[in-house]
Amino acid sequence: MQIKEILGLTPTQQSIVVKGWVRTKRVSSSVAFIAINDGSTIHNIQAVVSEGTVSEETLKLVTTGSCIAVTGKLIASQGQGQNVEVEVVSIEVYGTADPEKYPLQPKKHSLEFLREIAHLRPRTNTFSAILRVRHALAYAIHTYFNNNGFFYLHTPIITGSDAEGAGEMFRVTTLDPINPPLTEEGKVDYKEDFFGKETNLTVSGQLEGELGAMALSKVYTFGPTFRAENSNTTRHLAEFWMIEPEVAFNELVDNMDLAEDFTKFCIKYALDNCADDIAFLEKRLIEEEKNKKKEEQSELSLSEKLRFVTENEFERLTYTEAIDILLNSKAHKNGKFVYPVEWGIDLQSEHERYLVEKHFKKPVILTNYPKDIKAFYMKLDEDGKTVRAMDVLFPGIGEIIGGSQREDDYAKLLQRTKEVGIEEESIWWYLETRQFGSAPHAGFGLGFERLVLFVTGMSNIRDVIPFPRTPKTAEF
Amino acid sequence: MQIKEILGLTPTQQSIVVKGWVRTKRVSSSVAFIAINDGSTIHNIQAVVSEGTVSEETLKLVTTGSCIAVTGKLIASQGQGQNVEVEVVSIEVYGTADPEKYPLQPKKHSLEFLREIAHLRPRTNTFSAILRVRHALAYAIHTYFNNNGFFYLHTPIITGSDAEGAGEMFRVTTLDPINPPLTEEGKVDYKEDFFGKETNLTVSGQLEGELGAMALSKVYTFGPTFRAENSNTTRHLAEFWMIEPEVAFNELVDNMDLAEDFTKFCIKYALDNCADDIAFLEKRLIEEEKNKKKEEQSELSLSEKLRFVTENEFERLTYTEAIDILLNSKAHKNGKFVYPVEWGIDLQSEHERYLVEKHFKKPVILTNYPKDIKAFYMKLDEDGKTVRAMDVLFPGIGEIIGGSQREDDYAKLLQRTKEVGIEEESIWWYLETRQFGSAPHAGFGLGFERLVLFVTGMSNIRDVIPFPRTPKTAEF
Repeated sequence: MQIKEILGLTPTQQSIVVKGWVRTKRVSSSVAFIAINDGSTIHNIQAVVSEGTVSEETLKLVTTGSCIAVTGKLIASQGQGQNVEVEVVSIEVYGTADPEKYPLQPKKHSLEFLREIAHLRPRTNTFSAILRVRHALAYAIHTYFNNNGFFYLHTPIITGSDAEGAGEMFRVTTLDPINPPLTEEGKVDYKEDFFGKETNLTVSGQLEGELGAMALSKVYTFGPTFRAENSNTTRHLAEFWMIEPEVAFNELVDNMDLAEDFTKFCIKYALDNCADDIAFLEKRLIEEEKNKKKEEQSELSLSEKLRFVTENEFERLTYTEAIDILLNSKAHKNGKFVYPVEWGIDLQSEHERYLVEKHFKKPVILTNYPKDIKAFYMKLDEDGKTVRAMDVLFPGIGEIIGGSQREDDYAKLLQRTKEVGIEEESIWWYLETRQFGSAPHAGFGLGFERLVLFVTGMSNIRDVIPFPRTPKTAEF
Repeated sequence: MQIKEILGLTPTQQSIVVKGWVRTKRVSSSVAFIAINDGSTIHNIQAVVSEGTVSEETLKLVTTGSCIAVTGKLIASQGQGQNVEVEVVSIEVYGTADPEKYPLQPKKHSLEFLREIAHLRPRTNTFSAILRVRHALAYAIHTYFNNNGFFYLHTPIITGSDAEGAGEMFRVTTLDPINPPLTEEGKVDYKEDFFGKETNLTVSGQLEGELGAMALSKVYTFGPTFRAENSNTTRHLAEFWMIEPEVAFNELVDNMDLAEDFTKFCIKYALDNCADDIAFLEKRLIEEEKNKKKEEQSELSLSEKLRFVTENEFERLTYTEAIDILLNSKAHKNGKFVYPVEWGIDLQSEHERYLVEKHFKKPVILTNYPKDIKAFYMKLDEDGKTVRAMDVLFPGIGEIIGGSQREDDYAKLLQRTKEVGIEEESIWWYLETRQFGSAPHAGFGLGFERLVLFVTGMSNIRDVIPFPRTPKTAEF
């Protein structure tokens, strides 16, 4: 039985076996208190060892990080903070943890240090809480889509096309790295490579997702995506997970409804199912923010920020309206924005957060962006200048979702691919969906780690994925 | 509203809008019948157009593959095979499909041909059914683990280690493909590569999964894995999805219990939730098998094969016992096996299927294999010759799951890594889990496409993943 379950039992001196890792051992005159955790919950269970029940030899091996099985009786706890505890009858030590070598001794460790021991950090309160929340969010996502008639589509990871143009790609190859076969022109002869062509890791499953939606109507992807960008920031990973729903017959307004309903569902699911972990992470964040300057501290606590999303209607307005608001803002007039504001710019995080946190005090969906700052597949508006894009903006982090209604007119889509320089041959299959039974459709992308960052209140994206991949880092 | 829902409504002449793709149009003297499908179900809805309601011009555009929205009244159907149909008031054509060009005309298409148009094949009955079953199985997997206290762990796709030694790997790189930087010794200088070391696509998330289990107790992975093997068979993909649960404190018998309970749950979920699709696929299989020789036809229908798993207790025996059974079998004595049988061999599919289909007539779990044919991380038995491995064998396909209790003794594990030639430095983090709070633990791997093959009755693995990657093929 897992500790989470045991902690919920009514204590009747029933015999019980607890298995887990020792977080701390405290010895007073004649009694030892052992806090045990098995990762099923943020809470430890306390095992109480009376003098003489367990040999000195065994008790000596019970140190922080060791793994043990405790047999005993479940009794009501006298101490504070727990309802039950275990009166120990015997202890089996599965694995020791030399206090001289085991790095996770009970003291404060920096997040930077813990990143270097990513193989052990899930044994800390903070990281086990994050991983449980991450699991809950993933399950919420699958549940939401399943309950709403969507089909999970596994789009390819290795891809022969770079149609999205979303960024630098990783090459996937089995060619000899020093002496690759060359063509007569002296270029690498990818015909000799495993797939008979140059292949890369996907940057998005959207285009293939659209193929699925043009057959099954409602699909979503949830898989890894990659960017070979040399960005060492707190917001970028080379390998991250993305969710991309795509729905036939949806237009921009339906896409907004879906994005709002979906994010509210996921965050509410986490609030309902991870209350203890979120409470722990909220306290952690308060401690962390004490080191910040007053003006950099967030006005909302973690759970307030989550309810800010679940309890507000998202404000919807066009990009053009947003630019007007920004231009008329005091922040702009007083020169508070670092980046300039004018129609045509890509909004910066400071602009997005101003709209969300200061102006509307609600999550915001901006729509109808200038076509020149958005992808080629977005549906042109009647004015020929803007496209049916939408970005969903959240407090603290700015853009969390980007999406659009897709261009479903074959001639217009072909025109756009030419304008941005995509070769027709490389996406003939994508273009064909507009030749055979084309339909209005729309979808969006959500970076999973962005969502986990938001719900856990962490500030570095490397801390919300088990084994982060970043420039010069692919350990474990 | 999706067609699946509409087909379940009670017809009261209510106004209804149906959106989907035209499967067929049939015109009799004064009436046209249009069969529409939107991928939500295997069933089409029939739209009936009386003379004069829709212009000739519009009706002409309604051809197989075109996408339309039909507005009309939902009425009880006069025809067979459906309860309701739509009495059409108007039709909007979203997208046409030139009958001269659209490849999916209503006739029989070979699976080989459909593989070449993988961007369109989800619009066929067979492939939409497969994709819906695939979705249901994926959801069943997440549901099973969530309900049983497991946490979904995203293990890395790009990896710096080849510890599993499970097969050929794909290199992931951003180095110049023609003139890579070289070290003084003339080797590729991977320090200059994106991650500062040589990196590959993962062949398994197990080792990292074990790290998770040593903190959260119960974890599972469900992600893409890769093999750069030049195998052009009906059973191999270069990119496929794998599920790998890993549980602290589980020993071999618990691992068997988990594998049996888990597979039964998933298959039962598909039977309960995909009855229509499985019925369709069962009929398809019967048709397909008509072309086979009598002795190659399966004795069980598709649904019988699925209930063979859900309704039987899995037979459990050791590898050594299985070898004895095979040696004493008539098949062996009569020379019916192509491959020789003796203790120490890797069992072939013919042997596995004999045990399942002929001898026990039940799914089978074989355990305690010779250590020399299994991976280095499996726990040594007391005899020093066998390991606590287990393979789960199913009818028709043989091995569907491979797993083991893991070696949790540091010295023994280190010894095994040396024997098989794995460098200690490359998996220091894995070895450390046996130094710090080691615990008994066990897990297994299930190739997702193998499961989908089994449940859909398809015979080529390329037909159960949306966009298959195989040697010389990475289209779409």
